[in-house]
Amino acid sequence: MTEDEKFMHSAYLEAMKSLEEGGIPIGAVLVIDGKIVAQGHNKRVQKGSAILHAEMDCLENAGRLSAKDYAKATIYSTLSPCPMCSGAIVLYKISRVVIGENKNFVGGEDYLQANGIELVNLDNAECKKMMEDFIQNKPSLWNEDIGI
Amino acid sequence: MTEDEKFMHSAYLEAMKSLEEGGIPIGAVLVIDGKIVAQGHNKRVQKGSAILHAEMDCLENAGRLSAKDYAKATIYSTLSPCPMCSGAIVLYKISRVVIGENKNFVGGEDYLQANGIELVNLDNAECKKMMEDFIQNKPSLWNEDIGI
Repeated sequence: MTEDEKFMHSAYLEAMKSLEEGGIPIGAVLVIDGKIVAQGHNKRVQKGSAILHAEMDCLENAGRLSAKDYAKATIYSTLSPCPMCSGAIVLYKISRVVIGENKNFVGGEDYLQANGIELVNLDNAECKKMMEDFIQNKPSLWNEDIGI
Repeated sequence: MTEDEKFMHSAYLEAMKSLEEGGIPIGAVLVIDGKIVAQGHNKRVQKGSAILHAEMDCLENAGRLSAKDYAKATIYSTLSPCPMCSGAIVLYKISRVVIGENKNFVGGEDYLQANGIELVNLDNAECKKMMEDFIQNKPSLWNEDIGI
């Protein structure tokens, strides 16, 4: 298992935690200098939140970081980051984004790359299956989460 | 005073509330069908938050809205929305953005307009003065808020 696969598995466990809470199964972790400094998951259902996507929750849990910290950070998300989360990544100039998959949703990938951010897609089977099942089971909740 | 100026004044009062709390003076209100449905202000200092910019706080306070509601909404912000806040506006397809000014900071305006969102700049003197004074007084806090 590569480092990226290891951290993605941590993001996957965050997503599973959300699912167990009755929420949307998307998880994220923020890694700096080879260590997880924050984790998060989608909290639309749990907190009635319009902004706590997994990546946003993870950045919020990381607290106030310096530009220097963000510059050496990698954010792992089980799913391609939506325009809001991509915008947050661009704002803070997080240098690297690793995604579990983009088969179920393609977010602001062009926007990230246009801003010089490295994007890696692991095309991870467990992430794809988890999201595919969720979208099939709760399509209206999923649509709400992506503004449809 | 036009409708836009009236709602911008409400956003300005939110910004002033943040300033009184020791925070960053940026405020926002969300208007649907001619009524303010939510207001918010930057809470970096107040909550140690990396994601609660004024527009994000306002969208969070609005709660879970339908795509139909977002489509007829206007968001008012005292300052040009950063990439994160612009991304949130793009995600939810909020149709109209009114800003107090963009003299002190230019955010994701091109990104908004490329996504068909109407952008109006009121070039408001009190918004400009408030932000100019704040940036002069607390440059490092301001830089942190925009990822520098």
